[in-house]
Amino acid sequence: MKKRLAIAFTGPSNSGKTTLIEKIARVLITNHKVAIVKNDPKDKAKFDVEGKDSWKFFNTGAEVVVTSPTRTTYFSHRQKQIDEIIEMVDDFDYLLVEGLKTLPLPRIAIFRNSIDESYFRCSEAIAIDDSIDLSNYNVPSNIDILDLNNTEQIINWIKTNAKAV
Amino acid sequence: MKKRLAIAFTGPSNSGKTTLIEKIARVLITNHKVAIVKNDPKDKAKFDVEGKDSWKFFNTGAEVVVTSPTRTTYFSHRQKQIDEIIEMVDDFDYLLVEGLKTLPLPRIAIFRNSIDESYFRCSEAIAIDDSIDLSNYNVPSNIDILDLNNTEQIINWIKTNAKAV
Repeated sequence: MKKRLAIAFTGPSNSGKTTLIEKIARVLITNHKVAIVKNDPKDKAKFDVEGKDSWKFFNTGAEVVVTSPTRTTYFSHRQKQIDEIIEMVDDFDYLLVEGLKTLPLPRIAIFRNSIDESYFRCSEAIAIDDSIDLSNYNVPSNIDILDLNNTEQIINWIKTNAKAV
Repeated sequence: MKKRLAIAFTGPSNSGKTTLIEKIARVLITNHKVAIVKNDPKDKAKFDVEGKDSWKFFNTGAEVVVTSPTRTTYFSHRQKQIDEIIEMVDDFDYLLVEGLKTLPLPRIAIFRNSIDESYFRCSEAIAIDDSIDLSNYNVPSNIDILDLNNTEQIINWIKTNAKAV
């Protein structure tokens, strides 16, 4: 059985989730296999170009896979649940999940400038920078406080707290 | 056990593989689940846009999955073999494969204007239109001859000859 660990990231728009996940992935990938799941709740992302063969195939309603010697790209019309995604990617050490707040995963909430205390309910840690004055907030004692700019500290927290999946 | 059938299409550039597969998929999908695998041997296809979050994530070297309520898109740095692709897509009735000539699948070779007889070795049928004069070629008797413009005939051939996978 592989040891696969998963962690989720949450926070308001523009809090820096993507930047933090990218920094963490760049460090982890030097020694580990990394997978990232990004939620696109409003289905805004477009990945193919109208008129291309793969676009034509996808527009028939078919599931489409494009293979090359260095890559595989899979366009599915289906909404896959996290367990299906884990089975699909299969071979990873760390799974970093952006969004998908309802998943039962340990979660780091990211804030800059202000904290939205409603995130405390679904988070095990907060990552903040010095734009935030903690004396203005009642952070529950069970929530760890991380430095948004200290990638190493956050990775250590992940190694301790991520969930085996 | 699901009954999943696979068929491959081959032929020179611009013979009409993509157009035929698209037409077949549009008919089959009215009653069946369809998946299409397209080979991109020179890794030419680009699916994401520089600077997007998913692009940033993929460029770390990580496997990336983007989920939305209506779609799932998986960007992998790995070359997946056909059995892994079948496991990944999982739920289909017909798998239409463009390219990947070495796969052990029944194969239709598509030609317009001229026939390349080297394809006879790896094909169970040829699909041609009236741009080709068959009297110029020695088509082996074990190779079925299909009308490239008769989608229904080709689909019937597929239903009889596709391989369970």
